[in-house]
Amino acid sequence: MHFEAALAEFLPADALLIETAAKRPYECDGLSAYREIPRVVCLPRTRDEVQKIIQTCAAYLVPIVPRGAGTGLSGGALPLAHGCLLSLARFNRILEIDPDNRLAVVEPGVRNLAISEAAAPHGLYYAPDPSSQIACSIGGNVAENSGGVHCLKYGLTVHNVLGVKLFLSDGQWLELGGRTLESPGLDLLAVINGSEGLLGVIMEITVKLLPKPESAKVLLAAFTNIEAAGAAVAGIIEAGITPAGLEMMDRLAIKVAEDFCHAGYPTDAAAILLCELDGGVDEVAAEIARATAVLQRFGASEIRCSRDEAERLRFWAGRKAAFPAIGRIAPDYYCMDGTIPRRELARVLSQIEAWSAEYGLLIANVFHAGDGNLHPLIAYDANDDQQLATAELIGAKILELCIEVGGTVTGEHGVGVEKLNQMCLQFGSAELAQFHRLKAAFDPLNLLNPGRAVPTLHRCAEFGAMHVRGGQLPHPELERF
Amino acid sequence: MHFEAALAEFLPADALLIETAAKRPYECDGLSAYREIPRVVCLPRTRDEVQKIIQTCAAYLVPIVPRGAGTGLSGGALPLAHGCLLSLARFNRILEIDPDNRLAVVEPGVRNLAISEAAAPHGLYYAPDPSSQIACSIGGNVAENSGGVHCLKYGLTVHNVLGVKLFLSDGQWLELGGRTLESPGLDLLAVINGSEGLLGVIMEITVKLLPKPESAKVLLAAFTNIEAAGAAVAGIIEAGITPAGLEMMDRLAIKVAEDFCHAGYPTDAAAILLCELDGGVDEVAAEIARATAVLQRFGASEIRCSRDEAERLRFWAGRKAAFPAIGRIAPDYYCMDGTIPRRELARVLSQIEAWSAEYGLLIANVFHAGDGNLHPLIAYDANDDQQLATAELIGAKILELCIEVGGTVTGEHGVGVEKLNQMCLQFGSAELAQFHRLKAAFDPLNLLNPGRAVPTLHRCAEFGAMHVRGGQLPHPELERF
Repeated sequence: MHFEAALAEFLPADALLIETAAKRPYECDGLSAYREIPRVVCLPRTRDEVQKIIQTCAAYLVPIVPRGAGTGLSGGALPLAHGCLLSLARFNRILEIDPDNRLAVVEPGVRNLAISEAAAPHGLYYAPDPSSQIACSIGGNVAENSGGVHCLKYGLTVHNVLGVKLFLSDGQWLELGGRTLESPGLDLLAVINGSEGLLGVIMEITVKLLPKPESAKVLLAAFTNIEAAGAAVAGIIEAGITPAGLEMMDRLAIKVAEDFCHAGYPTDAAAILLCELDGGVDEVAAEIARATAVLQRFGASEIRCSRDEAERLRFWAGRKAAFPAIGRIAPDYYCMDGTIPRRELARVLSQIEAWSAEYGLLIANVFHAGDGNLHPLIAYDANDDQQLATAELIGAKILELCIEVGGTVTGEHGVGVEKLNQMCLQFGSAELAQFHRLKAAFDPLNLLNPGRAVPTLHRCAEFGAMHVRGGQLPHPELERF
Repeated sequence: MHFEAALAEFLPADALLIETAAKRPYECDGLSAYREIPRVVCLPRTRDEVQKIIQTCAAYLVPIVPRGAGTGLSGGALPLAHGCLLSLARFNRILEIDPDNRLAVVEPGVRNLAISEAAAPHGLYYAPDPSSQIACSIGGNVAENSGGVHCLKYGLTVHNVLGVKLFLSDGQWLELGGRTLESPGLDLLAVINGSEGLLGVIMEITVKLLPKPESAKVLLAAFTNIEAAGAAVAGIIEAGITPAGLEMMDRLAIKVAEDFCHAGYPTDAAAILLCELDGGVDEVAAEIARATAVLQRFGASEIRCSRDEAERLRFWAGRKAAFPAIGRIAPDYYCMDGTIPRRELARVLSQIEAWSAEYGLLIANVFHAGDGNLHPLIAYDANDDQQLATAELIGAKILELCIEVGGTVTGEHGVGVEKLNQMCLQFGSAELAQFHRLKAAFDPLNLLNPGRAVPTLHRCAEFGAMHVRGGQLPHPELERF
C-alpha cells in the first residue's frame, strides 16, 4: 500500500491533503523566503489519529514536520518535500483553568492570547507574550521557547511551562513535569522547551498562570543618541530595578511606528526606551520614581509616564506595530534575533548602522534591550533577488557579530533552517555531536523535523567552520551526522 | 596492570587513596544512614588528572561517583564498593568575578557562600542559598539543582547557572551555555542541572550574580493553628506579592529552634511564618504593608517586622538552625524533601502529625512554604534498628502522599539512592525508559553514578510499582534497564 493510502485508511478526507493546491497554504511559516510543498499535509482531530499518523510515518520512514500556527520566524515549520506536514491547529481546546493552583491545561493549537483571555475572569494571565501572541499557538511557543516583551521579569516559555505530554517518533506517549515547578529525574521537560519539533509531537501543555498586577505603568524616555539609551538600560538593571519590560527602538523604528499608529512617540529622538513597571500601586510608584532618576542621570532628553491604562496601551501599540509598520518603507523585512551582553549594545548598533549604509538597505532596530535581545529588521524587496541575497548577508554578519561579542545567534525565535550555519560558529563539534546524541535518544530514526535546529557536522565542515578542539575528532560513530 | 596501578602512574600519592582507613571519611554523604567504602578515592588537582582518571575508569569499566562537599541529603555521592569516588574538592578556585556582566566563573569545589563573599565588594551576590551554604559546593549544587530559602523569588540553581564545562564519561570535553541567559540548540545545560552526577563530571560553572537589594525586611507572623498559617501562605502569593523567602515552622520546630538559638520566636504558637521582602526601600515598605494586611486577614495572632539588620538575621537564625537543633530531641533525624501544591499544605501536615502519633517518632516541620516544598524532620535514634526502619517507613509514606496530592518526591535534595522506589510511583515506565535513553546519550557505558537518581525498570517491577500505560511495554531494547 502507498503511504498516502495507508493514511487514508484512518484519516477523513478533510484531514489529509494531497493535492498541491490544497497543500499550498502550508508551504512556509513566518520565514517566507523559504518555501516547500510537502508530500502530504495532515490535519488530525484526535490524539488517536496523531498516534497513527506518527506510526505510519515511522513504518514508511517518511519524516514529519510538526506545525502550530505557522508564525515562526526561523523556518522551523518549513515543510520537507518528501515529508508529512503535521498540523496541530485543530487541537485548540483549553482543557482546564485551575485558579487555585494557578495553572491552565491546554492543547497545542490554542493561541497564546486565548489562554490569558480564558484566565482573565480569575484575575490571572499567561506571562510570555511574543509580538505574534494574537496568532501564535502555545505548542509553537514551547517548541521555540518563545519570549516576548515581558520575559525580562517573567521568564521565557520554559520558565512558565509546568508539564507537557507528547508522542515520541515511534508513537509512544510520554508525560513530563506536572503541576508543581520542580520535577525529579533528569530534566526532560526543559529539553522539550525549544526543541523545535525535533524530539516529539507535543499534545498537551500545562502552563503557569500569574495574577494580573494591581498596577502597571510605562515610562517613555527619549535620547538624543543611541549610546546613552544603551547605557541607561544597563543603569536601570544595575540599580536593581526589574522592569516588566524594557524595550528600545531606534530612529527609523520610531518613525515608521509613529507614522503607522500614532503612539505619540517623539520622532526627533535618536532612540526611545519603553520601561514598564508592575506590581502593587505603592510599589510601582516607588519604582517609577527610582527608574526616572536613573533615566535622568543617563541624559534622557524627555521622560513621560503613562497617565492611565489607555496611554500605557498606546505607548506599547507603537512597539507592537513596529514589525508590520516596516511595510511602509519596503515590501519585505528580514527580522533577526540575536542576543548580546547588554554592555555591547552601543558597539553592535553602530556596526549595524555602518552595514546599513555600506549595503544600501534600511535597518530598523526594535528590541528587548533589558535582556540584550536584538531584533534588527532589514527592509528589502523579495522580488529583487539581489536585495534578498544582501539582506541574508547582512543578517548572517549580524549573527556572527553577536557571537563575537559573547552573545548567541538566537534569543527567542529558534534556529530552524535560518541559522544552521551560525550554529557551526557558535558550537564546537563535541557539542554538536552531543546535540545529535540527545536527538537520537528521543528519535533514533531521525524522523522528526530532521536537519533543522542543529547542523550536521558535515554541513559545518562544508561551511568551513567546524571547530575541532585540541585536535580531537568527535566520536567516530557520529561522523555520519 | 591493575586498575590501582594504572591510576598511580599519573596521580601523586596524596591524590589516590587505597587504604581503607584513608577512604573512611568518604564512605557517606549527608545521608549517613547509607555507607560504603569505595574501591579507590581520587583527589585530583588538575583538569588533566581528572580526564585521565575518567579515561582509566572507562578502560577498566570501573564506575565513577563524583563528589563535591558531601553535604547532599539523598545519597547521591554514596560510594560504590567497586567504584572510584572522584572528589572535586581541590577545584576550589574562583576564576573570575565579572561585575559588568554580573557573573562569576568558578570551579566545582568552591563553596556556595564563598561566591557571594567574593562578589560582595561589587555589591553583588549569588542567590540560591541552601541551608548548608557554608559548606556545600557549587558543583554539588548544580548536580542536585539545589534550592534554598530565597528560591521562591530568585529561582533554583538551574535558573542561576549560565554555563557549565564538563567531561563526558569517555573523557570528552563539553562546553554548554555561556555568558547570556539564552543559548540556541537543545537545552543540554538544563539537563546537566539536577543530573546527580549521571551525565558528566562538571569542571567549571558560570553563575549569575545579582545586585544586593537596597533593603530587606522580615515579617514574623504567629498563628494559633497550622491550617490558618497554610492559608495565609496561599493568600500572600495570591495577592501578587513575591517574597524573597516565605518559610513555615510548626510548633515542634519553633520550640527546638528557640531553645537552640534564642531567635525570639513565640513558643506558644502552633506555627510561624517568616516572610522576607526585598528591593528598594520604598518598595519594601509598600510590600511590608500589603503583606501585613494579608497576614492579619488570615488571623495571625502576632506580627512583628524586623526593626534592623541584626533582628532580620536573628529571625532567620532560628530557621537556619532548625536542622541541627533537632539534635536536642533525638540523636539523629531524617530530613524529607517533597513538594506539594500549596493548597494541600494543611491536609498533608495533619496526616504527618497523625503518623507521628501512630508510630511514636517526633516530626518537626520546617519548610519552604511559598513553593510548597516540605522538609519534615523525623527524629530517631540510628542505633535503634527499629527506629531507623520506622523513620524510613514514615519517610516513604510522606513521599507517597506528596505524589498522591499532585506533588513530587523531591523539591531540591535530589533522588540519589534515597527515593528510587518513589520514582517508580511518580513515573510510568515510558518516562523511566526515556530517562535511561537520555543517560545513555551522555554515558553509553553507564559509568557515571550508575543506579542512582533513576530506578531501573527491573527494580520498579520488583518494588511492585511498574506502571505500564495502556498495556504497552516500553521499548524492548530497554528491558535490560
